[in-house]
Amino acid sequence: MHLVVVGGSDAGIAAALRAREFDPTLDIDVVLADAFPNFSICGLPYLLSGEVGDWQALAHRSRADLERSGLRLRLETTVHGVDPVARTLVVVDAGHREAVMGWDALVVATGAEPVLPPIPGLDCPGVFVLHTMDDAFGLARALESAPESALIVGGGYIGLEMAEALIERGLEVTLVERLPQVMPTVDANLASLISEEIARHGGHVVLDTGVHEIAPCRGGRLCVKGDGGFERAADVVLVAVGVRPNAGLAGSAGAAIGPQGALVVDRRMATSLPGVWAAGDCAETYHAMLGRPAYLPLGTTAHKQGRTAGENAAGGDRVFAGSVGTQVLRVFDLAVGRTGLRDLEAAAAGFEPLTVVSTAPDHVAYYPGAHPLHQSVTGDRTTGRLLGFQIAGHRLAQVPARLDIAATALHHGATVDGISDLDLSYAPPFGSPWDAVQSAAQAWISASSGA
Amino acid sequence: MHLVVVGGSDAGIAAALRAREFDPTLDIDVVLADAFPNFSICGLPYLLSGEVGDWQALAHRSRADLERSGLRLRLETTVHGVDPVARTLVVVDAGHREAVMGWDALVVATGAEPVLPPIPGLDCPGVFVLHTMDDAFGLARALESAPESALIVGGGYIGLEMAEALIERGLEVTLVERLPQVMPTVDANLASLISEEIARHGGHVVLDTGVHEIAPCRGGRLCVKGDGGFERAADVVLVAVGVRPNAGLAGSAGAAIGPQGALVVDRRMATSLPGVWAAGDCAETYHAMLGRPAYLPLGTTAHKQGRTAGENAAGGDRVFAGSVGTQVLRVFDLAVGRTGLRDLEAAAAGFEPLTVVSTAPDHVAYYPGAHPLHQSVTGDRTTGRLLGFQIAGHRLAQVPARLDIAATALHHGATVDGISDLDLSYAPPFGSPWDAVQSAAQAWISASSGA
Repeated sequence: MHLVVVGGSDAGIAAALRAREFDPTLDIDVVLADAFPNFSICGLPYLLSGEVGDWQALAHRSRADLERSGLRLRLETTVHGVDPVARTLVVVDAGHREAVMGWDALVVATGAEPVLPPIPGLDCPGVFVLHTMDDAFGLARALESAPESALIVGGGYIGLEMAEALIERGLEVTLVERLPQVMPTVDANLASLISEEIARHGGHVVLDTGVHEIAPCRGGRLCVKGDGGFERAADVVLVAVGVRPNAGLAGSAGAAIGPQGALVVDRRMATSLPGVWAAGDCAETYHAMLGRPAYLPLGTTAHKQGRTAGENAAGGDRVFAGSVGTQVLRVFDLAVGRTGLRDLEAAAAGFEPLTVVSTAPDHVAYYPGAHPLHQSVTGDRTTGRLLGFQIAGHRLAQVPARLDIAATALHHGATVDGISDLDLSYAPPFGSPWDAVQSAAQAWISASSGA
Repeated sequence: MHLVVVGGSDAGIAAALRAREFDPTLDIDVVLADAFPNFSICGLPYLLSGEVGDWQALAHRSRADLERSGLRLRLETTVHGVDPVARTLVVVDAGHREAVMGWDALVVATGAEPVLPPIPGLDCPGVFVLHTMDDAFGLARALESAPESALIVGGGYIGLEMAEALIERGLEVTLVERLPQVMPTVDANLASLISEEIARHGGHVVLDTGVHEIAPCRGGRLCVKGDGGFERAADVVLVAVGVRPNAGLAGSAGAAIGPQGALVVDRRMATSLPGVWAAGDCAETYHAMLGRPAYLPLGTTAHKQGRTAGENAAGGDRVFAGSVGTQVLRVFDLAVGRTGLRDLEAAAAGFEPLTVVSTAPDHVAYYPGAHPLHQSVTGDRTTGRLLGFQIAGHRLAQVPARLDIAATALHHGATVDGISDLDLSYAPPFGSPWDAVQSAAQAWISASSGA
């Protein structure tokens, strides 16, 4: 049986490796548009900050590793058309040679592409996006000429991580966000901690300001204009306002597309076309809290979807457990994360949410080095069910793994009160007899019974 | 209604505070033998290491805080007899004044006491145990005279934490353990990491060696002799070979006692005597994995049991969810923890365990500062159920909270495969697209399907 995987990033490689593990007799081609299979796109900000010295280190596995695992890699090869009836596709390699390739099963993992806002000047030299290794190389070259200032359009993950990276490299950095807060996937009180952390390190965060023009100005710089008379010149501009699914290939072949432009998949990651599976940023994600599809393009989800698609494409029968909306971000010394539903999201989904904000030290106050954890628990007033959890604190305060305690509880449909019951670990340098997460749950319980 | 709580440590104070919160009209006396209500006994090693400068900082709440919460504290008062029929008890205060006190509900939280091995010389000056604030003050005074060497009998929590504390204070430290490994609650491969960590910092760990005599020797030192011709002189000896339940008070009143000498309680923390509840190190613990009582004297459990006992003593109806056997320890830069059942424990409980050891970096290898996590997953071969998890790694590698992900999954009866499905967080400085815990689960799955 011949499996073709289109896409060599997280989802595609996870699918191919799992398929091979599940059925070692499979013949597997992985077709990818660039020369960088299995590279960590999430690592690009750390390459650009200089924390990762060698770009080749960003490969989770080397090309040789992948080939030793039994995958045939077709690098710098694009797919120009899929025939779902004949079960063929047309590939064009770096030498412009076109070929027809047959397949018995196809995994589409074509990822996403950066959203480009409809503003003039995006094609000016010095304006960058950051989504591929080639994007990173381009920006790295621009940084070699020692620019003094950068302007970042967009206050999501990439914008925030790149603000840190460029500040670390000594640039004067301005981050401009259209919304009243950065990181719109967390509540405003936590988002303001992120803005403060960037300001504390010398960056400028400008909120409530849409950008409407980028144009060359004096001294080879770029002049950026926005709402409310905003105007700033910078040597480099990075546009990071989100991504959209790259679903055209399978869409053109007739695969169903959802409301956000992503491929519709069932929980086995099957598209609407027989024999065609999809995974990663090109596809929808089953949201386990909402019980319906959502679009949540994240590396973690891409890996899990890929593993599921690969196993099923190889003849297995695995169901994707779904996402509960877990995300974490580090900016300088601050870690911020969320899982589950926020208050508004929960209300929109028909729950009766109560959200309670509280603060607890990450470990017993008497042991040196305690840091405050800012936590927010969302639970259902009627059923007591845990609906969501948000947390922010020092990068050494176990913020991500504490977030994961809540994510694990959400996955199992726990109540807020049930968090308080968990037998969590304790030693004075690490925690408290009631872990901070449990203190947050108890704050919710007190507020809920008082309400 | 009058509630009397006997014991002012974790369980007693948790019970009193929860009872007061549940029913603010309650009249509550907390009777404690010493003058240190709500002190963190788990913090004693850090007081003795010097990391905690002021012993008063070890109080989770001050005496004034507790009184403001509505508790009447009777310090330095011992209870000499409980009459469960008349619902009275006899108290003797610091001035040797005896009084009879009535109660409507009684919470017994009399804790544990150090086990003293049957060896001569335990009464020599310079030999210490460490369980109370007074024990700590005694040892602190001995350390003020700048001893050069210490010998610790026992390689459990207290012995190991005190080995670090005394090495940090510049003493030559020898730790002697009767068993072939320290920390007998984790597997030997993780325990050996602990021994190595102590050796790396200049301590001496002597295994397989029971101590059978302590006696004064030249120069005011103590000479310790043990199995196989072991003999070493030290200025200070600390005996830390475990604790046993202090259940005599309620036992004398007729409360049922279990096989390990702890008070028998149901899951509402009721003893066999009507109106008498028990919590903490004097009582048994419901083990949620085994579905039966066990004796697991830990601060975390004491708090949860206390909260349950207090709520029920105040007229509530709360069930203690039980322990899954979670524990964590830090020694120097190493954190080691376990939750659930180890292979032998699982087999003894009728499971068909398979245990798979694996190693994964705490975060993506390309981001600086990655540390290896040594993990061990125990699952049931037949059902795939997760039975236990052990983990060791650098203190900055989120070992405790990662352990808690497994503890949360165990609490919910998850399968090993279900760990791989969890939507856990990821950012390159903190983790990997598959968290290390998930890599460990996948290693188990591969071994399990290969077996």
